[in-house]
Order: sequence, then C-alpha cells, then structure tokens
Amino acid sequence: MQIAKVRGTVVSTHKELSLRGVKLLLLQFIDEEGRLLPEYEVAGDQVGAGADEWVLVTRGSAARQIDGSERRPIDAMVVAIIDSVSVDNRLLYNKKDQYR
Amino acid sequence: MQIAKVRGTVVSTHKELSLRGVKLLLLQFIDEEGRLLPEYEVAGDQVGAGADEWVLVTRGSAARQIDGSERRPIDAMVVAIIDSVSVDNRLLYNKKDQYR
Amino acid sequence: MQIAKVRGTVVSTHKELSLRGVKLLLLQFIDEEGRLLPEYEVAGDQVGAGADEWVLVTRGSAARQIDGSERRPIDAMVVAIIDSVSVDNRLLYNKKDQYR
Amino acid sequence: MQIAKVRGTVVSTHKELSLRGVKLLLLQFIDEEGRLLPEYEVAGDQVGAGADEWVLVTRGSAARQIDGSERRPIDAMVVAIIDSVSVDNRLLYNKKDQYR
Amino acid sequence: MQIAKVRGTVVSTHKELSLRGVKLLLLQFIDEEGRLLPEYEVAGDQVGAGADEWVLVTRGSAARQIDGSERRPIDAMVVAIIDSVSVDNRLLYNKKDQYR
Repeated sequence: MQIAKVRGTVVSTHKELSLRGVKLLLLQFIDEEGRLLPEYEVAGDQVGAGADEWVLVTRGSAARQIDGSERRPIDAMVVAIIDSVSVDNRLLYNKKDQYR
Repeated sequence: MQIAKVRGTVVSTHKELSLRGVKLLLLQFIDEEGRLLPEYEVAGDQVGAGADEWVLVTRGSAARQIDGSERRPIDAMVVAIIDSVSVDNRLLYNKKDQYR
Repeated sequence: MQIAKVRGTVVSTHKELSLRGVKLLLLQFIDEEGRLLPEYEVAGDQVGAGADEWVLVTRGSAARQIDGSERRPIDAMVVAIIDSVSVDNRLLYNKKDQYR
Repeated sequence: MQIAKVRGTVVSTHKELSLRGVKLLLLQFIDEEGRLLPEYEVAGDQVGAGADEWVLVTRGSAARQIDGSERRPIDAMVVAIIDSVSVDNRLLYNKKDQYR
Repeated sequence: MQIAKVRGTVVSTHKELSLRGVKLLLLQFIDEEGRLLPEYEVAGDQVGAGADEWVLVTRGSAARQIDGSERRPIDAMVVAIIDSVSVDNRLLYNKKDQYR
C-alpha cells in the first residue's frame, strides 16, 4: 500500500451504475520523509477519511476485496486512516499532533 | 483511478473478436494541478465520453468489472465523466464552466 | 491499452510448455505524438501483426482473456492492429498511408 | 518480487475490519547494488521481519496468496526474510554479517 | 513480458511455506538495444535459467499460471530462456554466440 494525503474530492453524475454511492477522494502520495509527491490517485473511500488526513491506499484487484465492492470497476481504495508512521524508531507522523 | 482528458480515438478493424463494438478513446492523463501529463492510455468507453471531457479511467482487472466486458482483453476503461474536481476546497475543474 | 510499433521478434525453444505455438513480438511503445518511447514489451500475438505496424497491447490479467490463452503465463498480448489514430480531430496515424 | 529493507511501521485503528491483526511494515526498496531507493511500500507481514532486515516483497494479487489473507484488501506482503543476495558470484548481502 | 539477464540468486530460509523449493533469481532488465537497465526483479524459476542467460520474465497474476505455482505468493516468474532477439531484421542477441 502507499501512504497518501486526502487533498480533495471528485464528483460525477454520469458514471457506471455500480459506482453510485461510492465517495471518490483525490489522494496525493507522500514519500518516506513525509513530503508530497507529484503522483496522485482517485480512490473510493468507505472508511470515512477527512481532508488532510493521512491514509493507506490499496491498488489493483485488492481494491475490490471490500464488502460491497467485489464487482465495482475500482482500482484504488482507501483501506485505513493512519494514526502514526514510525521510521527508524522516529515518529514521522502522528495524527493527534496534526489535529490539536 | 486516474483523471484524464479525452484527446482522440483509435480505430481498428483487425482485432480480437471480443473487442467488436467497443469504442476506444485516446486519453491523456492530467496531474493534480490540471496540467496535461505525457502519459496516455487507450481505454474502452461505455459511458459515452466526448472530446475534451475530463473522465475517470480505471486500469487492470477492474476494467473488466463492467457488464458485458467481463471476458474482454481490455486493461483500461472509462468509468465516469467528471462533473467537478476540488482540491483543498478550491474548485480545480467544473464541467459546466468548460462548456458555457 | 498502449499504442506500440512492432519492432522485432523473440525466439525461445526452452520455455514453459503452455507458451508453445505463441508468437512473441518485441513491441516499442509510442507516445501521443507518434514518437518511439524507450519502453518496450514482449507480447504474444494471435492477430497476426507484421513488422512496423502499429498495434494495441493489453497488459496484466487482461492478456489472458483470449481464447486458448486463459492459463498461459503471459502478461502482454497484441489485441488489435491499428487502422488510424486521431488526436484533436487531426489524423496522427493512418495505416494506409504507411503502406502505399 | 522486490528486495526491500524494513524501515518502520504504520499504525491504524480506523481501518477495514479484515486488516485487523495484520502488522504493517514500511519497506524501502533497494537497488541491485544494495543502495536505498526513493520508492517505498507499506506491506503486511506474517513472517515476522524485524527492523533493518532485508526482505522480499510481493505485490499485486500475489499478496493475497497467503493463508488467511485471501480476502484482505492488501496489495503488498512480505514473503521472505533474505539470508543472502549474490550478484555475479559476489556476495552483495549476508544477513549474518549484518547482525554480528 | 520483459527481457532480463540472470545476474544472481536470492536465498531465504525463513519464508512463506509455499515458497519452499522455488529457486529465486535476481534478474536485471535489458532495454531494446541490449543495455542493462537499473530496474531488477527477483523471480521464481522453473525453467532452469543459468547465470548471464537472457530470459523472459512475466509479472503479475500471470506468474501464477504455472503448474504447481497457482497458489504461491509470487509476482514474477521466468517463463523462457531466450535463443535470439531480432529488431528491425537485425540480430540483437543470439545465445549461441554468447557461449562459444
């Protein structure tokens, strides 16, 4: 999975029927030092991630291993809201610090 | 999924039989700032996207999760015509503005 | 799918049994302006593409959605010989012009 | 598979239910000369890899070919802790040397 | 598939049980001119490729379309030892020449 930050949303009314009711988030990837990368992904979200939160995004067929999405034409899904990331025993990100 | 702009079409008469009747669009990817990227994708389209529209393209096995395409050798499909994209609460793209 | 030009062939006698009888083409990718890119792919071909022709190549599990190839360990297949590519209503490639 | 070094961990309480109990490691990829690359991956771990160990990471649908993870929305898993890597008959990495 | 050169081996004793008995080769990719690329892949090998040989490597779910590997968490497999590669009717590689 990749670490990404919730940057925005994508809205569409004219789409595959099976995508109805799926919230689509615009995620921007983050490198192992916490910097925003140029790559982004539009992913479905069923965990309820909010703006600026760090999330884990899964891609490929794994994105359909979620209840109700087995037959959706989705290649990326948010699967977790990140509490903390530690690198070399150093805390790179802590959600609590971001929201105090 | 990736955000892409409809740039053109690809026509083929000599192809896998299962691809008959599938419209093939040439899509060019767009970055999170709305700029055209050098990457493109030829994708099937069943939602009826038109020239210059912004669309969502799904890739990999997800492209076959569409009625009638389950057994087609297609690795990319247009799954939505985008109405709007918002980044950091700013409207990056609004389809209505493009067509006024 | 990606647009690619047939550049050559790959021959192997010592291979997985299920690959017997599959013609393997060396394809070089082409960008949206018609220029050769550094990326290439070795793909199976059952549509009969010839040297210098422009083709569509599908990758991933889609490459096995072809009669007789469902269980072959192939991750790329030629699925169409391209007649024409149009970008912004301009003809980028026309097979007839190439062979006159 | 890719060779990667265990750099850290990712913790999440709010996530897909099926991810409960899966340890998530932050892996950084290593090139064929043993240098750290900028690319990383967050992968599930059921083999018990520790900090700084070199591991093999598998991606895509292969990450679900592990007992108990068949239906998990995971696109990367640690599948082996590396003992040694040899390139051109030269020992590039030997786990024993790292831990003496 | 990609063309790669066998550069070395990876040894692991602590791994997923289903990987037992699978030889793991370190492959380095080769471009369409025969030059070594920085990208590598660790792949399973059941065809018996030897050091410095040019091979075809398949990636993704195709790597499991091999007898006995259907449930292995492997995302890359050697599927052929290359005899020759021809580009624009010029012989780029000929195995016999390499070993005389």
